[in-house]
This record gives sequence, C-alpha cells and structure tokens, in this order.
Amino acid sequence: MPRNAFYAQSGGVTAVINASAAGVIETARKHRKHIGKVYAGRNGILGALTEDLIDTSKEPAASIRALVNTPGGAFGSARYKLKGVEKGGHEYERLVEVFKAHDIGYFFYNGGNDSADTCLKVSQISATLGYPIIAVHVPKTVDNDLPITDTCPGFGSVAKYVATSMREAGLDVESMAKTSTKVFILEVMGRHAGWITAATGLAQSKPAEAPHILLFPEIAWNEEAFLARVQEVVRQFGFCAVGASEGLQDKDGKFLSESGLKDAFGHAQLGGVAPMLANLVQSRLKLKQHWAVADYLQRAARHIASRTDLEQSYAVGKAAVELAVKGMNSVMPTIVRTASKPYRWKIGVAKLTDVANVEKKMPRDFISADGYHITAKCRAYLEPLIAGEAYPPFENGLPRYVRLKNAAVKKKTGEYKP
Amino acid sequence: MPRNAFYAQSGGVTAVINASAAGVIETARKHRKHIGKVYAGRNGILGALTEDLIDTSKEPAASIRALVNTPGGAFGSARYKLKGVEKGGHEYERLVEVFKAHDIGYFFYNGGNDSADTCLKVSQISATLGYPIIAVHVPKTVDNDLPITDTCPGFGSVAKYVATSMREAGLDVESMAKTSTKVFILEVMGRHAGWITAATGLAQSKPAEAPHILLFPEIAWNEEAFLARVQEVVRQFGFCAVGASEGLQDKDGKFLSESGLKDAFGHAQLGGVAPMLANLVQSRLKLKQHWAVADYLQRAARHIASRTDLEQSYAVGKAAVELAVKGMNSVMPTIVRTASKPYRWKIGVAKLTDVANVEKKMPRDFISADGYHITAKCRAYLEPLIAGEAYPPFENGLPRYVRLKNAAVKKKTGEYKP
Repeated sequence: MPRNAFYAQSGGVTAVINASAAGVIETARKHRKHIGKVYAGRNGILGALTEDLIDTSKEPAASIRALVNTPGGAFGSARYKLKGVEKGGHEYERLVEVFKAHDIGYFFYNGGNDSADTCLKVSQISATLGYPIIAVHVPKTVDNDLPITDTCPGFGSVAKYVATSMREAGLDVESMAKTSTKVFILEVMGRHAGWITAATGLAQSKPAEAPHILLFPEIAWNEEAFLARVQEVVRQFGFCAVGASEGLQDKDGKFLSESGLKDAFGHAQLGGVAPMLANLVQSRLKLKQHWAVADYLQRAARHIASRTDLEQSYAVGKAAVELAVKGMNSVMPTIVRTASKPYRWKIGVAKLTDVANVEKKMPRDFISADGYHITAKCRAYLEPLIAGEAYPPFENGLPRYVRLKNAAVKKKTGEYKP
Repeated sequence: MPRNAFYAQSGGVTAVINASAAGVIETARKHRKHIGKVYAGRNGILGALTEDLIDTSKEPAASIRALVNTPGGAFGSARYKLKGVEKGGHEYERLVEVFKAHDIGYFFYNGGNDSADTCLKVSQISATLGYPIIAVHVPKTVDNDLPITDTCPGFGSVAKYVATSMREAGLDVESMAKTSTKVFILEVMGRHAGWITAATGLAQSKPAEAPHILLFPEIAWNEEAFLARVQEVVRQFGFCAVGASEGLQDKDGKFLSESGLKDAFGHAQLGGVAPMLANLVQSRLKLKQHWAVADYLQRAARHIASRTDLEQSYAVGKAAVELAVKGMNSVMPTIVRTASKPYRWKIGVAKLTDVANVEKKMPRDFISADGYHITAKCRAYLEPLIAGEAYPPFENGLPRYVRLKNAAVKKKTGEYKP
C-alpha cells in the first residue's frame, strides 16, 4: 500500500530550491506504488506542526515543472529548530500525530546543517516513538558548508551571480577610476565560511582585473594590512575592487559588523561590512569609494542561475525519492565529483549522522598565502559549479515565475500552538 | 577630404554605453568619404585635453562588435566639466589645439545633461574660436532625465535589472516571512528623478507582491506615514518590500543620507538610505529587516540588459554619425515613441540648446496619489523599455566581455596639465 510523503523547505531559500521540490514531486508522481500524495509543509516544518499541509497533487504538471524556473520557496520556508523531548518540548510527538493522521510514511526535508539535524531526529522516530517513517534530507544551502557532498545545491547559482556582478561592476569602476570612484566594495553572504567570497574571485582572470582583494571570514581582519594593500592596488592598477564576506571577523572571532540581533538558530544577524570598510577607506586613504550589499539579490537571482547548480538541485530531489522508495532511511543524496576537467558528477549517499550539524570550512589551501585571494586549486574546484546558463522564461521584460495554488489539506487533528 | 572624428564617454557609465560606441565606430567605418579615423578619448574628455587619444582603427571589426555585449566604458569615462574662458580656464582653446593637430572635424560626446552642455559649447567652437567642427551629442544616462528624448539609453537596462531583482528578492522574502525577515528594502540609483525607483515598481503584478512601497525623491519623506504604511502592508500580506531612491529627501530638500562628499559636478555623493530605513523599521516597528544596496551592480548588469535599450543605444550612436555626415551640428539624436501598444520607436533629432542642463522630472501623474507607487500611465511608459533580453556570450560560466587594445595615437602637441 502506498503511503503519503511530506516535503518541506527549511532555512534560507535559494534561486534553485524549488528545482529540488520539482525533483521530489515529479519523481514521487512516478512511484505511485510506493508514494501516494506529496504534502508540502506551508512555511516549512511549521506546516507539519500546525497541520497546515499543502496538497501538491492539486498542482498541474506544468506548474510543478515551472518550479524549476522559480526562485524563493514555493511553499514557504521557515527558520525554526524543533525542540526535542529533552528540552521540555513535544514537537516530535506532535509530528507523529500529524503524520499518522495523514498516513505520511516519507519525510523529505530540504535544508542545510541545522535542518539535517532535524531530519536525522525524524529518521529516528521509528525507533524512538514507534512510528514507521523514512526520512531523507535534500541538501540545500548557499553557504556550501555541508560536509561530504562536493557542493551544496544553491551555492553554484550564488557563486555565478557574485562573480558576474563583480566582473561587471569591476569594468564600471575601472572605466571611471581616473576621475571618480577608486575603491569599490561588494559585500556577499557567508556567515562562517568564505565560499561565496571565494566565488567572487572567479571574476578575475588577470591581476589588473576585479576583484583585487577578497576578505574571508576565515582570515582574521587586519586593518593596517588591508589599507596598505588597497593603497598598493590603486597605485598599480588605478582602482581596487574588494569582495568582502558579511562574516568578516577580527582575531578574537568578533564580527566586524554585528547588528546585535540573532536569528532563530541563535546566529548573529549580520550586515553592513561594506559601508564600514568604505568609510575606513574614505577616512584613512582619502580615496573615493562606492559599495554594494547584494543581500537577498544574490540568493534569489534565478535569472543568472548556474545550469550545473540547477541540474544538481533537481537531481538531489529526484534521488531523495528514489532512495526513500528503496527503503533507505536517515540519508542524504550528495554530489560526487568524479572528474574535474571536464567536470563530471554523480549522485552519492551520505548518512545523516555524518552530516547533521557538521560545518565544512574552506580548506586553507583554497586561500592564497597572503589571505587576500583564491588559489588555482580553489578556482579548479569552483569553476565547474557556475558552468552553464539556464534562463527562466521572460514575459513583458521580466522573468515569469510560477505561483502555486497551494491548496490546503483538510485538517484532521486538533489545534496546536508551536 | 575626410576628416577624423573624436568620440568620448562622459559621466557614469552604463551596461550599454559601449553599444553606442559600437554604433558610432561601425557607422563611421561605413562613411569613409566623410570620416577618416575615429579617435576615442582615453578617460573621456580628459583624453582630448591631454592628447591621450586611442586609435580605434587598430581594433578589428569583431572587437568593435563585441562592445555591444560589454558593460562599462571601453575607453574610460570621466566626471569632468570643462572650464570655459569666462572661468579663467582655456580648455576649449586646448581642445581646438588638439583637434587641429589631428584634423578632427567631428565630435561625438556620449553622456547626460552636464555632458550635453559641454557638447553644446564644442558645437559653438566654429563660431567662438573659428575652428570648423561638427558636434553631436550621443544620449546616455541611467537617470533617464534628459529632455525631449522618450527615454535615455542606459536607463532601460537598469530598469530591467531593478525590476527583476525586486521580483526575485520579493519571492525570497515572501517565502521566509513567517519566521524571518518581514521587511526588505532595496536602494536604487536616481539622485533627483525617481525613474529607477519607478522601474522597481514593475516587479509588482498584484498588490500582494513586491514591491509594496516605493520611496521617490520627488515625494517628501514622511517618517510616520512610511512606518504606518509598512505596518499595514505587513499586517495585510505578511511582508513588505520597499524600493527606495538613494535621493530620498525631506520636505526641505535635504537628502536623508548624505555622505558629505560631492562629485566633480558639485553633486552630493549619496548612499546608505536602505540601512537607515532598515534601522528605523527595526527600532520603531520591531520588525526583522534586510536591506540591499545595488549600487554599480545595477548600471553594469549587462547580463540582464534590455534588448530594447541595447538596440536604442546602438541606434543613437549610428544616428549621431549619420547626422554629422549630413552636416548637422549641435544636435542630439533622440528616441521618439510612435506607438505604445505594440511599442514602436524611431530616431528623432533635438537641438542641444534645448537639451543642455535641462533635467526631465517624473510627471506627477506617474506617481500614485498617495506617493507610494507608480500609476498605470507610468507602467505603460516603462514596460516597453525593459522588453527583450540580449544575453552576452558566456565562457566558463561567466560573461565574456571584450577588452580593447586601446592603442595610443602619437602625440603632436606639447604637454598640457588639465
């Protein structure tokens, strides 16, 4: 007898997380023997807790297909960490109540590190709470910091966006530098790992080109060394373009620009490194500066998504269902790089116990000895990930993105306040 | 006897100013009877003053063609306003000295309002300084504030970029709003005219979608009204996306966020409205916010250029040469809209005396009565300008942009310090 599946998006969304959703739903529709309906959680795991389920079977095939072209989280995502029994919460019990009511036998969770831990705990429900379920994590994070997998779906598209943007803005600044802006700073995401900052470096094909300096969260901030380097680059090339991580930290691990707020996972909410650096350049070096903060633009930029990333995002969704119907529990499909030139990849499998809450950092040998740029090894790793374009359809000059009906499933349990 | 031509890029560059350069150079190459070589000024008009001329005849046809795909200013641009005799400068005399030395009989100046004034003065050199020259202005400004022409080359591409970015970021915020960011602010360019801010509004196809609020430089800032509106939008739709002009001003005309710096034309250098608004939302409404400042990314984004804008940019370069060889002096080719649905345009001609230093503001009826959005009339005006895509070629995942040889012309005059 087929059982139903639950799919939810978790944490920060990406330009291609909906491609993973399409991979899950389209593949589930091909496995009617095992999987009945796919219910999506409205606003991620909150949808399961509050029994706010979306019946994806109400969506025509064309709408599910259009998810491949649509950024953001089509069902709503959530930054919400489940409280286990040990913390006085009973959220896993509540999940079982909802799953039981809707005969949910498969759990697909689309997220990063924190979410992998949630997925791991759900995968243990059969043992801990006696409810049979197969849980598979679908990897997704622009931070590229999940272990085991060669890369994380979502990252390649941000990488392509920041490298393209830096190349374009670099040409702008270079052509104006004689009489105008001499230093340009682009702030990019990446709280603890410098993967996105590194990707910005792909824009440069020779030393005269932008970006000249990268500021990684892995390299302790040194004001004097930075200013000296900017001065030297301007002297040599007439302008200086800097790619800076939002997570830039001093030697004591203190973020340069803390807003004083924390997100639901307890992480500091960052922003504003670029203006801080720009002010420094202005006041100390008296050089005219400009700065940009890409913020959500970088992770939502479906219009410049990497085709490789898009294909991998779909593939992990598809593989998650294929693993589940084979009865594989507590796993995550991974991207395995089988060759670099030309790039070849296949889908692998990781155990969630090896993934949950493990953060993959940039290897030190991906960062140049002076700490200000990427190495050839890093470039060889990154380049295939941004390869290929996959433009969405356009209508009246703008990308046409799908909006699903998101029809609610009739509730069967009582009220629940998370 | 053919005479040589001088071409220079002036002021802020755009994603498509090089398409105008291609239009000038390719068309000049077809008029050998009138035009000998095209010399480009290295770093704009400074190249003429310092006799730093680039011989574009050294560039193969393929490189000139590739300019159509390349953002920034291929020959370097400058923010530099010529000092006339009345101000104790002798820069126009110096121009005549250089033009005479290189037999320059045609002057093509690619810029905005301030540059049109320079071009006008050069067009009067025949009369004022007795040197025969034909000067034609090639319109370019992302600010879209040149008079007479229906639109300004460069604007349509920024418009497409900001509307696309807002649509994408809007989907991101909308899908996360339940547990995360509720207010998103995107700061866009446009010092005195709200054209780019208005274009951001194109992203919205129904009231629930981003952007919900636009903050125009034409509408005096009102803190209480803004906060009340944000609160109401969040209550109604769960999130609020705001497009804000860098030139937002209070009722006394004071910019909300002045950096205290002025550019070479004496205009205040702006930046940082978005973080200021975000802080306000955070502290007054206690709503989680995120903000982005697109800065140069918006005007350099050749990867998402408007095909219409690209074609018009090329067309004004081509038309400038055609006007010049017909002996038309002191003019500027314009875009004339002959029909809106479907959109049709042709090239017209304006006199520089009608263009120089005139700033076209947004008509008040392009802004909704409450001051927070665009009207249907504005939308009808803007929509055709972003129509069509014109992707650059990509190589290894990144746009391939041309870098010219920019071979220097041998100097014939003495040293000159501008």
